[in-house]
Amino acid sequence: MSFAYSEADKAAIYKVIAERRDMRHFLPTPIASELLQKLLQAAHHAPSVGLMQPWRFIRISDATLRHSIHKLVDEERKFTAQAIGEFDDTDRMAEFMRLKVEGILDCGEVLVATLCDQREKHIFGRRTLPEMDLASVSCAIQNLWLAARAEGIGMGWVSLFDPQQLAQLLNMPEGAKPVAILCLGYVNTFYKSPMLVEEGWTTEKPLADMLMENGWQNNERQP
Amino acid sequence: MSFAYSEADKAAIYKVIAERRDMRHFLPTPIASELLQKLLQAAHHAPSVGLMQPWRFIRISDATLRHSIHKLVDEERKFTAQAIGEFDDTDRMAEFMRLKVEGILDCGEVLVATLCDQREKHIFGRRTLPEMDLASVSCAIQNLWLAARAEGIGMGWVSLFDPQQLAQLLNMPEGAKPVAILCLGYVNTFYKSPMLVEEGWTTEKPLADMLMENGWQNNERQP
Repeated sequence: MSFAYSEADKAAIYKVIAERRDMRHFLPTPIASELLQKLLQAAHHAPSVGLMQPWRFIRISDATLRHSIHKLVDEERKFTAQAIGEFDDTDRMAEFMRLKVEGILDCGEVLVATLCDQREKHIFGRRTLPEMDLASVSCAIQNLWLAARAEGIGMGWVSLFDPQQLAQLLNMPEGAKPVAILCLGYVNTFYKSPMLVEEGWTTEKPLADMLMENGWQNNERQP
Repeated sequence: MSFAYSEADKAAIYKVIAERRDMRHFLPTPIASELLQKLLQAAHHAPSVGLMQPWRFIRISDATLRHSIHKLVDEERKFTAQAIGEFDDTDRMAEFMRLKVEGILDCGEVLVATLCDQREKHIFGRRTLPEMDLASVSCAIQNLWLAARAEGIGMGWVSLFDPQQLAQLLNMPEGAKPVAILCLGYVNTFYKSPMLVEEGWTTEKPLADMLMENGWQNNERQP
């Protein structure tokens, strides 16, 4: 017995995987709450280590709070630019500062995705790899991303923030940790390629560079 | 202009998100290498922080190596059981030992997913949250999981292993880190619910428990 989906269904799934983009440009059009709920339900179908379901989502509907979150991100953007300047050079720093790295004030919805508190209770699959809770939350976010793309909604994952400051802003308890500011919204267009490629910030490496067999080999192609 | 997919395409995408399972029971039928390549290409379409593409996949085609990996997992299974016994009680430990936690020796393909080395070069989106590389690899694994389900192939993510020992077994360089042993294979049936629910290990909490607005609230339902 085959459990494979129809060719049409498979094509839709491969299409959404290929067409999903990390968006920074949004239209302000609001997202209907039923639709947002549907997207969150897709996230909630994610796998999780030991079925701990460590994801929590905080919807930011308060405009003042949205501005405070934007401010945190903008501060970290400058610290990141400095760090890039020190590691690379000032040209690279200037290039970074020209990039649009978030659309927090422009998008229809802002969600903060966080790791729950009291995670130490969950040992299954985490004794040697406690960070598997983040892996589970990331799978949930990827589900949300794909469902959003299918609905014609763009999403951007912003990780330019100080997690302690954001946790404080959101009254999060000890042990809980924010891992993503998610901007969701309708868009004028989806980027054809990842925005960082379109903007000339970096290039993509091919799959062949990522594959090895039976052990680590130096698989990086020489330029 | 709407970028939403057709109703049929959206339905296929929601279906695969809902029907994906973390599998532990497999048939030994091999997976055609073109199909495996297609699944890996789906993984490779994942988003990544600063477009760093930190995922590496090591295909385990050597039977002896597969057995060595299984041995590592079985050792960690016993350490985990002990830790659960100490944290909870001996009944819970016994329940854990009765669960099938992996299908490494049964499945058609084993892949090890790892974080690449030299990750410290990538500052964008990681200055305050260096673990965003794991988030990216997890998105890639979720893509692989969904594509596999659409192809009628089950996948299980095993995180019961000592990452240092597995890294050594695979000759991984300093800085690289294995984060998943992925079992892929055809199956007799897909679990109707997550296996840990079917086996009575735990129950699932509803989405409503995961949602908050404008800050952390005690959203856990009272029993």
